Amino acid sequence: MQNFKAPERDTLFVTHELLDIQSHYEKLGFEDASEDLVRAIYTEAGKFAENILAPINASGDQEGCKFDDGVVTTPTGFKEAYAQYVEGGWPSMAHPVEFNGQGLPYSLATSLAEWFSGANHSWAMYPGLSQGCMETLKSHGTKEQQDMFLNKLIDGIWTGTMCLTESHCGSDLGMLKCKAEPNDDGTFALTGTKIFISAGEHDLSENIVHIVLARLPDAPKGTKGISLFIVPKYNLDENGEPGERNTVKCGSIEHKMGIKGSATCVINFDGAKGYLIGEPNRGLNCMFTFMNIARIGTGVEGLSACEAAFQGALAYAQDRVQFRSMTGVKNPEGPADPIIVHPDVRRMLLTQKSLAEGNRALANYCMKLVDITSYGKDEAEMKLADAKLALLTPIVKAFLTETAQEATSYGMQVYGGHGYIAEWGMEQLARDTRICTMYEGTTGIQAIDLLARKIMGSNGELLNVFTNEIKEYCAQIRETKQFNAWTNAIDSHVDEWLQITGDIGTSAANNPNELGAASVDYLMYSGYITVGYFWLKMAVVAQQKLDAGTTEVDFYEAKIHTAKFYFDRMLTRTRSLVSAMQSGSDNLMKMDAQLFKVG
Amino acid sequence: MQNFKAPERDTLFVTHELLDIQSHYEKLGFEDASEDLVRAIYTEAGKFAENILAPINASGDQEGCKFDDGVVTTPTGFKEAYAQYVEGGWPSMAHPVEFNGQGLPYSLATSLAEWFSGANHSWAMYPGLSQGCMETLKSHGTKEQQDMFLNKLIDGIWTGTMCLTESHCGSDLGMLKCKAEPNDDGTFALTGTKIFISAGEHDLSENIVHIVLARLPDAPKGTKGISLFIVPKYNLDENGEPGERNTVKCGSIEHKMGIKGSATCVINFDGAKGYLIGEPNRGLNCMFTFMNIARIGTGVEGLSACEAAFQGALAYAQDRVQFRSMTGVKNPEGPADPIIVHPDVRRMLLTQKSLAEGNRALANYCMKLVDITSYGKDEAEMKLADAKLALLTPIVKAFLTETAQEATSYGMQVYGGHGYIAEWGMEQLARDTRICTMYEGTTGIQAIDLLARKIMGSNGELLNVFTNEIKEYCAQIRETKQFNAWTNAIDSHVDEWLQITGDIGTSAANNPNELGAASVDYLMYSGYITVGYFWLKMAVVAQQKLDAGTTEVDFYEAKIHTAKFYFDRMLTRTRSLVSAMQSGSDNLMKMDAQLFKVG
Repeated sequence: MQNFKAPERDTLFVTHELLDIQSHYEKLGFEDASEDLVRAIYTEAGKFAENILAPINASGDQEGCKFDDGVVTTPTGFKEAYAQYVEGGWPSMAHPVEFNGQGLPYSLATSLAEWFSGANHSWAMYPGLSQGCMETLKSHGTKEQQDMFLNKLIDGIWTGTMCLTESHCGSDLGMLKCKAEPNDDGTFALTGTKIFISAGEHDLSENIVHIVLARLPDAPKGTKGISLFIVPKYNLDENGEPGERNTVKCGSIEHKMGIKGSATCVINFDGAKGYLIGEPNRGLNCMFTFMNIARIGTGVEGLSACEAAFQGALAYAQDRVQFRSMTGVKNPEGPADPIIVHPDVRRMLLTQKSLAEGNRALANYCMKLVDITSYGKDEAEMKLADAKLALLTPIVKAFLTETAQEATSYGMQVYGGHGYIAEWGMEQLARDTRICTMYEGTTGIQAIDLLARKIMGSNGELLNVFTNEIKEYCAQIRETKQFNAWTNAIDSHVDEWLQITGDIGTSAANNPNELGAASVDYLMYSGYITVGYFWLKMAVVAQQKLDAGTTEVDFYEAKIHTAKFYFDRMLTRTRSLVSAMQSGSDNLMKMDAQLFKVG
Repeated sequence: MQNFKAPERDTLFVTHELLDIQSHYEKLGFEDASEDLVRAIYTEAGKFAENILAPINASGDQEGCKFDDGVVTTPTGFKEAYAQYVEGGWPSMAHPVEFNGQGLPYSLATSLAEWFSGANHSWAMYPGLSQGCMETLKSHGTKEQQDMFLNKLIDGIWTGTMCLTESHCGSDLGMLKCKAEPNDDGTFALTGTKIFISAGEHDLSENIVHIVLARLPDAPKGTKGISLFIVPKYNLDENGEPGERNTVKCGSIEHKMGIKGSATCVINFDGAKGYLIGEPNRGLNCMFTFMNIARIGTGVEGLSACEAAFQGALAYAQDRVQFRSMTGVKNPEGPADPIIVHPDVRRMLLTQKSLAEGNRALANYCMKLVDITSYGKDEAEMKLADAKLALLTPIVKAFLTETAQEATSYGMQVYGGHGYIAEWGMEQLARDTRICTMYEGTTGIQAIDLLARKIMGSNGELLNVFTNEIKEYCAQIRETKQFNAWTNAIDSHVDEWLQITGDIGTSAANNPNELGAASVDYLMYSGYITVGYFWLKMAVVAQQKLDAGTTEVDFYEAKIHTAKFYFDRMLTRTRSLVSAMQSGSDNLMKMDAQLFKVG
């Protein structure tokens, strides 16, 4: 099995060379986050990912989580790795100093989260869910609630969850039934069953803090009657330490395709003591804060799988010999040539590589936008970042996870039959990342969020804000002759994007199903253009470095070759997506539901 | 979990209404295969698939095969199901009466193989591999070898395997090392290790007949020095019954992503007694007979997964309620509408449906061609069928298995998070069918076979033979105004297909890498056109039935709706494939191998 290597060099390229993250940090007041410090943190994070997390990835998959009467045991080594994670101070990195955090930016922690997830998706979900819980407490908790729960979560001694889904409602939270009845002391008694609760029960931490969506007795129906509660596994004693067990218990864990080291729990609340967080009936609004961050996090999981699959496939393609190159022997000493000489193997590798690197640029760009919305000082700039983030969040979530399916599938395909065998690790990547297009809102949900809620909901304004950035960039580099063809490709794609958006808006005015009918193709189309924009920018930066006489000629030349591949073979996928979008909704909706039959 | 339903009605549509299989059978002398008999066999096969195989599919996956010191135990129920299969006479259906067979056509048995595989992919592999072994013995065995082995295989009392792959050679069989040394009695002693041997060891049958590729001592290097041998698990005693154990033993079984009920074995030959089959050093030629049939069989496995995934997704989409339709409430009694009202869910269902039904038409068309090449009397007709089959075999193998990945992925996606959970059965379908693009020659191998070996190797003749058929059909129905747009779409696609093929030929004359660079996109492009041709034909047949006043209005209207979906949203995928093909090989090959790096 290929050992996972943290993509340190490429992350530095994206953050420091493409996105100029240093001046961004300085501007936001993160003077401490100097390039030296960032590099030092990268080194430590790389060691943690490669030496601690990666070695327990395959064994964690084989062993899985164990369930026994409410008690969940994580795979061998998970608990020890988590203890090292806490000891290393990783949970607190991007939290404010006032809550015992280290006061470093969100973007730094999240670009490293890619590596942790790439090394071990299952393990990385435990701290990942905790971050969501912390964000909610930070944004919506009272001072008292923060004092009770937040410091321990930031220390990592406790972990957190987000309890949304019930068996009859996933996407459509308006139907949820879990109820919260007021106790005399101002707390609430929660009753109901939640499913699909990642990290809902485990043996990594002393306490688990559940953030739970439930209904108050007098709540209106639908999404406007949902409130948010904090429900700890152990109630706190007078010293704020875990005391007696709350009446919340794991009923079972799911048997899943992948992420088997991550406990996916049924959680039963039986009059469990909870604390209302935020205002009554406004729970879903509070959740949106967290959900946007979680969606970027899920996109990053997809990105991490692209990277890991590329690494695995490349190692095999360089090592495995089979047939001779069609243009003559390349490896005369061996019985055959390494399969990287074959064009179709190259096509698969470059698909993975161009997705991993292009998606990394887009993901880190969004992390930078999150920084601005969280720590910014200039209101206009914050508003602009917020607008771009609103547009790009569903794209990052869905595009990065959908393309991860292709990249991990190619990971197996490059190995031939060996890709299907557990010991090579490639099939685990495909199984683990398969969840990413489903949880945190399916691709279909993201696509409707993008096209209906964000773009049509803003009368196209959110799209204009981002396409203006692209158009400005294209205008700015138009004189760089070397990149004329790619600049024109992006420029004309943006024109087409705006045109198609207008056309869909027009037809949707008469028939709202036109939005749903175009939505997923529209999202993927938007994704290919957006990542194409970043590939153009990366090629320009790489050429500047080459022109300036870099010592890393291979690295930058590879960037330009990969950009060429992307423009020739990935961006052109928009052609079929346009045809599909423009075909309208009749080909989906005219067929009566009763005509769908099996047999 | 959705119960699998044998697609009896749709198979009848394809075989009897689209392909006029009855007159085909009569012409080939299968007068016994009347429509009544075929329907009776369909009914029995449907029961076997639904009642015997489907119920042990999920349990077989959970349990897997067990290995203990060379002994392989299949999952609970597999052995009993196989006994019923033998008792029902299924193994012998399509074998000549002279070998104890029932003398029915290949196409009949193979269209039913789709159902068995749809019900239980793992189980269906045991008899599937046997068929390959029997074909080899039938075509290349001596009378004595056939007497020794073939009757028992046809009865199903014994099963067979194909032993090709070694750890260092899969696609590139020229490198194989397994050796065969002559014994004094005319037999051979085989020594070496084979891997990935499906059904290589199990508890279903009294004996296992391995067909093994190996090298004679004086054999030339490469593919021209490979011979074919029969190696039984038990040597035969004087009565032709299994006697003492041969020195062939299962070394281990693989831990795989899926098809866990199918034993994938390492087989060690330690001077094992074998019989040369066919001429020395001509083993690979003998294998090709079998491999073409096996490739169609693998395509059919992909088709079966499309069908099963559609069935599962449809059942859930009709049952699961979530949100209201954007055009108004459709299910006022319920808390929400069934998700089949949402356009994007429809898009996924229709993708599955149009692939399952379109691919079924293509697969059965190829089975009909196999019938003609096997049982035909008219030499010109046989030659034509052989040419079409040569062209279509790699398309069936790769297109049907690649599209199965999408269809099974949508099977999960329609379920949202539930799709990831084992109990719904959708994730097993995706895992099981994932092997199909890898075994029996990867998609990349099929694509090179199609473009380089078949099309360029025949100077385009094999392509012309099939495109002529399509052009003639288009000319013939040009006056049916209703289908003008679709006819034109197919007709112009065929022109483009020929044009692009010529262009690739021209550029490949200077640079053979142009073939590999275009190959997989070319194969998928060819597949979309080919299946589009069958969708046009199916729509025409459906309209004829509607015009004639059928009682099955829903069935035929669904066909026309599905055809529309295919033309609007599936055939248009060719647009991006054309862009990719035309982009040439530079974007793949100009980047030095050393520039591929991780980190």
